[in-house]
Amino acid sequence: MDNRKRLRDLGIKIGKFKTGKLNSITDIRDVTVGHKTIMTNLPNGRSVRTGVTAILPHKGNLFKEKVIGSSYIINGFGKSTGTIQLEELGVLESPIMLTNTLSVSSVTEGTIRHLLNENDDIGHEAGTVNVVVGECNDGFLNDIRGLHVRPEHATEAILSANKDVEEGCIGAGTGMSCLGFKGGIGTSSRVTTVEGSDYTLGALVLTNFGKKEDILLPGSNKRIHNDKERKNLPDGSIMIVLATDAPFNERQLRRISKRAAFGLSRTGSSAAHGSGDIVLSFSTAHKIPHYSTGPTQSFSFLVEDGPIISDFFEMTVEAVEEAIWNSMCKATTMVGHNGNVSEQFPYHLLLN
Amino acid sequence: MDNRKRLRDLGIKIGKFKTGKLNSITDIRDVTVGHKTIMTNLPNGRSVRTGVTAILPHKGNLFKEKVIGSSYIINGFGKSTGTIQLEELGVLESPIMLTNTLSVSSVTEGTIRHLLNENDDIGHEAGTVNVVVGECNDGFLNDIRGLHVRPEHATEAILSANKDVEEGCIGAGTGMSCLGFKGGIGTSSRVTTVEGSDYTLGALVLTNFGKKEDILLPGSNKRIHNDKERKNLPDGSIMIVLATDAPFNERQLRRISKRAAFGLSRTGSSAAHGSGDIVLSFSTAHKIPHYSTGPTQSFSFLVEDGPIISDFFEMTVEAVEEAIWNSMCKATTMVGHNGNVSEQFPYHLLLN
Amino acid sequence: MDNRKRLRDLGIKIGKFKTGKLNSITDIRDVTVGHKTIMTNLPNGRSVRTGVTAILPHKGNLFKEKVIGSSYIINGFGKSTGTIQLEELGVLESPIMLTNTLSVSSVTEGTIRHLLNENDDIGHEAGTVNVVVGECNDGFLNDIRGLHVRPEHATEAILSANKDVEEGCIGAGTGMSCLGFKGGIGTSSRVTTVEGSDYTLGALVLTNFGKKEDILLPGSNKRIHNDKERKNLPDGSIMIVLATDAPFNERQLRRISKRAAFGLSRTGSSAAHGSGDIVLSFSTAHKIPHYSTGPTQSFSFLVEDGPIISDFFEMTVEAVEEAIWNSMCKATTMVGHNGNVSEQFPYHLLLN
Amino acid sequence: MDNRKRLRDLGIKIGKFKTGKLNSITDIRDVTVGHKTIMTNLPNGRSVRTGVTAILPHKGNLFKEKVIGSSYIINGFGKSTGTIQLEELGVLESPIMLTNTLSVSSVTEGTIRHLLNENDDIGHEAGTVNVVVGECNDGFLNDIRGLHVRPEHATEAILSANKDVEEGCIGAGTGMSCLGFKGGIGTSSRVTTVEGSDYTLGALVLTNFGKKEDILLPGSNKRIHNDKERKNLPDGSIMIVLATDAPFNERQLRRISKRAAFGLSRTGSSAAHGSGDIVLSFSTAHKIPHYSTGPTQSFSFLVEDGPIISDFFEMTVEAVEEAIWNSMCKATTMVGHNGNVSEQFPYHLLLN
Repeated sequence: MDNRKRLRDLGIKIGKFKTGKLNSITDIRDVTVGHKTIMTNLPNGRSVRTGVTAILPHKGNLFKEKVIGSSYIINGFGKSTGTIQLEELGVLESPIMLTNTLSVSSVTEGTIRHLLNENDDIGHEAGTVNVVVGECNDGFLNDIRGLHVRPEHATEAILSANKDVEEGCIGAGTGMSCLGFKGGIGTSSRVTTVEGSDYTLGALVLTNFGKKEDILLPGSNKRIHNDKERKNLPDGSIMIVLATDAPFNERQLRRISKRAAFGLSRTGSSAAHGSGDIVLSFSTAHKIPHYSTGPTQSFSFLVEDGPIISDFFEMTVEAVEEAIWNSMCKATTMVGHNGNVSEQFPYHLLLN
Repeated sequence: MDNRKRLRDLGIKIGKFKTGKLNSITDIRDVTVGHKTIMTNLPNGRSVRTGVTAILPHKGNLFKEKVIGSSYIINGFGKSTGTIQLEELGVLESPIMLTNTLSVSSVTEGTIRHLLNENDDIGHEAGTVNVVVGECNDGFLNDIRGLHVRPEHATEAILSANKDVEEGCIGAGTGMSCLGFKGGIGTSSRVTTVEGSDYTLGALVLTNFGKKEDILLPGSNKRIHNDKERKNLPDGSIMIVLATDAPFNERQLRRISKRAAFGLSRTGSSAAHGSGDIVLSFSTAHKIPHYSTGPTQSFSFLVEDGPIISDFFEMTVEAVEEAIWNSMCKATTMVGHNGNVSEQFPYHLLLN
Repeated sequence: MDNRKRLRDLGIKIGKFKTGKLNSITDIRDVTVGHKTIMTNLPNGRSVRTGVTAILPHKGNLFKEKVIGSSYIINGFGKSTGTIQLEELGVLESPIMLTNTLSVSSVTEGTIRHLLNENDDIGHEAGTVNVVVGECNDGFLNDIRGLHVRPEHATEAILSANKDVEEGCIGAGTGMSCLGFKGGIGTSSRVTTVEGSDYTLGALVLTNFGKKEDILLPGSNKRIHNDKERKNLPDGSIMIVLATDAPFNERQLRRISKRAAFGLSRTGSSAAHGSGDIVLSFSTAHKIPHYSTGPTQSFSFLVEDGPIISDFFEMTVEAVEEAIWNSMCKATTMVGHNGNVSEQFPYHLLLN
Repeated sequence: MDNRKRLRDLGIKIGKFKTGKLNSITDIRDVTVGHKTIMTNLPNGRSVRTGVTAILPHKGNLFKEKVIGSSYIINGFGKSTGTIQLEELGVLESPIMLTNTLSVSSVTEGTIRHLLNENDDIGHEAGTVNVVVGECNDGFLNDIRGLHVRPEHATEAILSANKDVEEGCIGAGTGMSCLGFKGGIGTSSRVTTVEGSDYTLGALVLTNFGKKEDILLPGSNKRIHNDKERKNLPDGSIMIVLATDAPFNERQLRRISKRAAFGLSRTGSSAAHGSGDIVLSFSTAHKIPHYSTGPTQSFSFLVEDGPIISDFFEMTVEAVEEAIWNSMCKATTMVGHNGNVSEQFPYHLLLN
């Protein structure tokens, strides 16, 4: 994977805002990302090409020190879990976990076991814990019916979290395909300055949507081919995780989350029927203690009467579009289940 | 449990509509219910008091012959799963499964395994399958941290489904408590006649909410005690499953689902903060094939310009209230985890 | 109307929490309520029995000093306006106006004209203003097709706002009927103490829903008659306005708003098909300036990890139920359009 | 306006699907569009540059013969009205009206008066009527504080409805600006064939959003200038109306409505904070009678298991993007309120 480049390394920039230092969701201080990749070959042409990715809002106890979060369903043909409570209470109390569609349950169980180990009081005086898991269907390259992701793989992904986000065929992205080529994990970030304070917004995507004919090339808006082919393949999905250190509340985060669809659109997607397209977002600016220390908690949030929040909307659109392209630019050709092949995206298409 | 009675056997009727033959969700033809009860005593005072309940919309292949469904979140402090796709597509393609909060993942996995066995094409040309699971926290009586529900228990609940719905301390209801007494599973139904056709609406509830002080007694609206006690216990939850053979579409089912809150209210609940109160509903009137046979499908739905749908709203309110009372009237005193005791509801409170 | 009493004056208390001093939405400091009643008799049996009610969150410039607000649609068969922006931005920037269904437009125009007069910058650098108006159908007693409410009536209601809330046949409640009797405006409040601070929650309702057969009497849960009569009358509606001085954010206010349905249920409603049942809520604890003074604003909100918010849920249920009963207990028999008569609620039904 | 061209006349095509005969929302049989343009110059530099646009789903009695409809809020900073009932009941029973932000009330009143004239039973046995009105803020060119749109203008727009949709500075579009140039009304359509049957989807937009720097040129994805200018102007809005003759239900229409955001994104919008971006949609395939003739109604809907609905998603994206460009390509330079000028879009920017 070493010789594969990110979009910017190919000389293509998206948008007006500058990126963070790493051009990654981990440009948000405290945010780390871990991957567990699961690849083996089994008898009879069955191949395991799958994994787990964990996004941690901070390095402390995520259940005891929650962060404000939100979500948005672009297209709900999907099996993600944990959004009901996230929407009701406006807080995230687990890592955000990504995996394949039929492994949401084992990743949930593994994450619960990890959180039970860290918190003796869950299930007793602390109540229960809400785990958020997103998914895409990697069944083209992966023996998804084999349920090869086990609970301990979730723990491994969590424990491996760090600031260097590998992209492409890694973690939950191992077996994913996007826009007719190999997809997977991608990330990007944007920075703005508000009256002397720098704020960063980062996106991490798990890409598994679309067909070649859908592609809108960045910087040229050209299509690779323009004919409408009618195929009956599953439509794939995309999971989009947004993180920011800017102080936004859950309603503001939801507004930001909705703009992820605008970035997705610019790559050529129209959120096809079978594509479960889900956005999960959080701000690290405030921590909400599980056991409050008084009857009230104080917050400071960015105001909404001027262009500030609109800048974050644009930063979201830009970061999501670039993260998607990074997932494709970094991914390498993969041979998988039943000999299916997903080709890496050829850079010359971008550079013409 | 034999000597415990249902509310009607105690001479108390709720509402204006007549009940179905069984006064049960299984009065809807084709609907069956199965339970798997898990009760053991472990060393060190740990007790297993939990289980799984499965509601099957029909006896055929639920994935290949979907039913129209909907959901409504009364209070989203909960970990139910499967509602994102249910809302997006308006169809239910799995049994509705109920269990304890931390076992949603293993019940999901067990149900997925069951559906994979039944359908060779899931994960391949058929795409993936969406499993709907609801939950309440039985940690007062059950060693919930032990994760004692395993995937195979889900399959057992599904395979045991039949027309006789046991109530009280059974299946997912084994370890639940309600309104200060022992709760669990309850069911009830209502019938109406629309221009010569009989239609039935049934409710099945998993009750685990509220305190004694909340109780509003049916038929008298008296309270058992009126003092406001401030306690800091977990608030519990209720799962409400509604089924009907009346031809309603997904929007109409959602309207009906919202009325479940009205029935819940009449038992004394105000949907306390920590109570995950979720409604899941479906109609058996139409089946949606997984592989369509043509570009369109024909439907017939009840019209909405007169009192017909309002009758179903009232039937829902009545059936939910009565199902909750049945869950308490049928439940028996349970000694559980750490020696905690949940007392059965004493009938004399109703009869004064 | 002088000899009509409120529910508590008849010796009936609802719930566990104590009321505010006035048992009114105006127990929240700064909240005032104004009414404009429009009653005339026209030729050919046409009668005008309608009006406007205005709820003002505070006495200052409501557009320049917004309050945090939310809404909840119990049943959306209604023509209320202004909730789209209220939900998107989480702030209320106008009085909450109530009137009859076909007069929402003229009340909106009158309120816009009032706010334009107060704010030279609306339509220019301040952008536009969002007016929130709720409605019920008073066509049984009022010549609703005559569109007798004019824009200036809205201004009159706003300018007459004060702390004494008249109830029954007044303002928007003039021509409304409820549960088979005369309805209209009602109000009630509840108080709680959180670590030494008193907080008040008040409800004001415009009642126009239900039939005699629906009634659940407070304190006895008896019905007046139990037979199911099938009638094809319009189903009416209820508008519920909630105000509090407790510091809640827009998500928390929405959770509180949902509990209004629980209070409505306890009077016997099941939110019939044609009943537009809408909840509007706000907190006076924080003011959001139209022109911010810096990039961030600080807030303090009540925490959600204990029983505090559940207390507000119960206070809401109690205040809504009592406000509905106050609207009926205070209303007097009204003869209206085409000689239609709506009888006042006879107290003896309560006192048996 | 005669010498202004549509996008296709300039040689630029968007997307893969073919257009309808007129490339207009009126390619859907029965759909007609009417405009009322209001332009006068008043003393003191005040200029009236506003109007009303009416979209009629069919030529019959819209209240008595409703169509299935839905809506989607891309960004809710707006004062549109009528969506609460549209979402609850899934039917549209009025023309869709478009106007300026502060004139929603007078257009509502005018439309109500028109519908009262057509229907003696509204306000009596027929209940009340729900009018749907969308809006954008034309205050840059129009004396919006003057409230120059009166109720009779709404009626004039309705009565003038026909199959030829004028675009640009017409009707509600008279005073609107878009992406730094003159905007207004635009329309476009797409056609697909499903097993021998042709289905059309059309979009009509009222464009008033964005800045020059946002523009993404169609067919090249170039920007006109790439610098981020921070300005504090109001953000404008867009209203998007979608119509189809394909048989979709209200849930399916909502899914289609969400894809309008994808088309909007491709013109460069990221749905800025102050931009009220609303989608309204309907299908003419079925009529829902106000007074039903029996307890059930039969429907036929397009199936959702294959690529059919995804094609409609793409058609929506294409038609919305092209309709926006048509609104700009057809609009002419307008001098308005306080001498403000909105320049027409110069074609050479497209053709480089």
